[in-house]
Amino acid sequence: MKRIGIVDTSFSRFDMSASAVDELRKQGGRFAIERYTVPGIKDLAAGAKILFDRGADLVLALGMVGRQPVDKDCALAADFGLQLVQVQEGKHVLGVMVHEEEAAGDAELAELFDRRTREHALNAYDLLFRPEAMTARAGTGQREGFVDAGPLKVRRP
Amino acid sequence: MKRIGIVDTSFSRFDMSASAVDELRKQGGRFAIERYTVPGIKDLAAGAKILFDRGADLVLALGMVGRQPVDKDCALAADFGLQLVQVQEGKHVLGVMVHEEEAAGDAELAELFDRRTREHALNAYDLLFRPEAMTARAGTGQREGFVDAGPLKVRRP
Amino acid sequence: MKRIGIVDTSFSRFDMSASAVDELRKQGGRFAIERYTVPGIKDLAAGAKILFDRGADLVLALGMVGRQPVDKDCALAADFGLQLVQVQEGKHVLGVMVHEEEAAGDAELAELFDRRTREHALNAYDLLFRPEAMTARAGTGQREGFVDAGPLKVRRP
Amino acid sequence: MKRIGIVDTSFSRFDMSASAVDELRKQGGRFAIERYTVPGIKDLAAGAKILFDRGADLVLALGMVGRQPVDKDCALAADFGLQLVQVQEGKHVLGVMVHEEEAAGDAELAELFDRRTREHALNAYDLLFRPEAMTARAGTGQREGFVDAGPLKVRRP
Amino acid sequence: MKRIGIVDTSFSRFDMSASAVDELRKQGGRFAIERYTVPGIKDLAAGAKILFDRGADLVLALGMVGRQPVDKDCALAADFGLQLVQVQEGKHVLGVMVHEEEAAGDAELAELFDRRTREHALNAYDLLFRPEAMTARAGTGQREGFVDAGPLKVRRP
Repeated sequence: MKRIGIVDTSFSRFDMSASAVDELRKQGGRFAIERYTVPGIKDLAAGAKILFDRGADLVLALGMVGRQPVDKDCALAADFGLQLVQVQEGKHVLGVMVHEEEAAGDAELAELFDRRTREHALNAYDLLFRPEAMTARAGTGQREGFVDAGPLKVRRP
Repeated sequence: MKRIGIVDTSFSRFDMSASAVDELRKQGGRFAIERYTVPGIKDLAAGAKILFDRGADLVLALGMVGRQPVDKDCALAADFGLQLVQVQEGKHVLGVMVHEEEAAGDAELAELFDRRTREHALNAYDLLFRPEAMTARAGTGQREGFVDAGPLKVRRP
Repeated sequence: MKRIGIVDTSFSRFDMSASAVDELRKQGGRFAIERYTVPGIKDLAAGAKILFDRGADLVLALGMVGRQPVDKDCALAADFGLQLVQVQEGKHVLGVMVHEEEAAGDAELAELFDRRTREHALNAYDLLFRPEAMTARAGTGQREGFVDAGPLKVRRP
Repeated sequence: MKRIGIVDTSFSRFDMSASAVDELRKQGGRFAIERYTVPGIKDLAAGAKILFDRGADLVLALGMVGRQPVDKDCALAADFGLQLVQVQEGKHVLGVMVHEEEAAGDAELAELFDRRTREHALNAYDLLFRPEAMTARAGTGQREGFVDAGPLKVRRP
Repeated sequence: MKRIGIVDTSFSRFDMSASAVDELRKQGGRFAIERYTVPGIKDLAAGAKILFDRGADLVLALGMVGRQPVDKDCALAADFGLQLVQVQEGKHVLGVMVHEEEAAGDAELAELFDRRTREHALNAYDLLFRPEAMTARAGTGQREGFVDAGPLKVRRP
């Protein structure tokens, strides 16, 4: 049975894990979920590695990024760690990051957290169980949590 | 038989994989192509590693980069992952990135996606099957998708 | 018996290790603490690796970041190192960084050093001994050393 | 017999490899040169790794960096890759990078390409065959391709 | 017998190695010093790895950073390499970097080179032979080459 790891943070202002679990369960199928909470986004890579060591086949790494320049450097460091663990393991860590300034107010931000996490949970499910569904979306301008940008075509006369 | 991996994204607004496969097929020769789709550019390194684990000799990593500062940090993180996987494997991952702001409108952007991907598909083919063709272009100012910059010469009196 | 490593610096203007040890001891339980001091934040990763080689199960990396642009690049380099060691070891290094400009004066800065270090010492303890306490704080907007930001909720009509 | 690898790019507007080979041959001595061409600077690390796998003792990585911000990010990613391969192999990759904006016009830029590459080819030769010559230049403010900055001395009264 | 490696550069305008060796010898004790010179700061990581492969227990990496933006990116790449080698080896590389713009003129810059290098040579010695001396300086705001910032205390009423 496949195992999906979820690592989330206490820094985040939204329970992203609940959205991820709910969306994954909606897809049906047989898989186990293991959740693990860390303080902030710079701890996600270690958390993902711990979940892989416990048998995860893919990890969803859920986090929030603040609006200050220092937060952007933290996000870069966090992403660096997520790249390291993925290349070392040969398995996906889908990073789901919501930046504080992406939405105008608390209500809109909460909605963005929920939608983006759910859409990436679907990506995680498809990577493991329906890669052909993932490929069907290739080049279509998907924007998780926002309206999709849509595909471009070359006009041949 | 050589194997060429192609990893592309659902974030991209253009089906870069179709351009790559078409251009590779035009070159003739015997090789297999395996395609794998991931959500965005930060997932390309894991996708490339998965394709190497399935036997790829070289991977084309195809992606689109947005116009926001956060997108540029994502591109840096993605590139970092692609460096990691290449050094670990000792094989090429040719990153083909198109930045949203490189073209003035949708039609021009689509053309750029197509041309750049095709020119890098040719690079991939040459690295595997015609390294002498690659060397013949050394120092000639190639600009994939744009007009080449051309070579400079030292003027000796 | 679990072992907690503490690596701190001579660059820092506050004895962060004393706050961490005091807070850890308050939690009770059986664990050993090993402390190791390095010059600055770019030496924390090597110090953490040395502590892991001596048997640590988790490391608290305590440092101060100056206010100049060069200091921010140092912090990024230091964070890269901390990501590397965590992914290599599969264990947490909780980085506790205080930036010089985060507080208005010396007294306020000292208080911030103390509070942030204590709150992360608690995170370290919980990761090792009470992961369910860590999970209980998931998505609640914890801000170590400052007032917490609190959780957001999606309003369902 | 020692082996020197040269990896160059088709992006570069100057045949840096020709300058490197000419300068290396002028030094005399017994060594083999192997050249390998890649598309751009982000492909240099994979190229260097391939040359090490074929037996190189040191690699000269020759490239050109454009003037746009995206080019600077590419250079940073390329440099990360070159650091990775050097630390993994325990051998030098001398990166020779010429930035488009370092010279006022095409003629001057061509001269800079030639001079810098030749001076770094000499560094490569010295690292392998005359380390004492390298040490003799320590602290002397060498500026490959430009006038040297020269040494500073502490004035003791 | 412990072995201290010193890697320095021909780019630097000051013979940092001489200051380091002089200061280390002043401490007395039994240890061997091995020196190795590379072109610039991006070559320090490979130099440090070579010294570790020859038996060094700790490496002092001595370099100068120019004042241009490109120099700052080079410093970041160099630091990244130094993090890599430290985590891989589990040993310290003390990076001693002097930035060109840190001092007002040549005389002052030379003094800064000398003082900072000597203070970090002492750190190196203490890490290997007197870790308790290193710990005694923890949290005291050491600023190698400049006046120390000094410690902060929490005021308890």
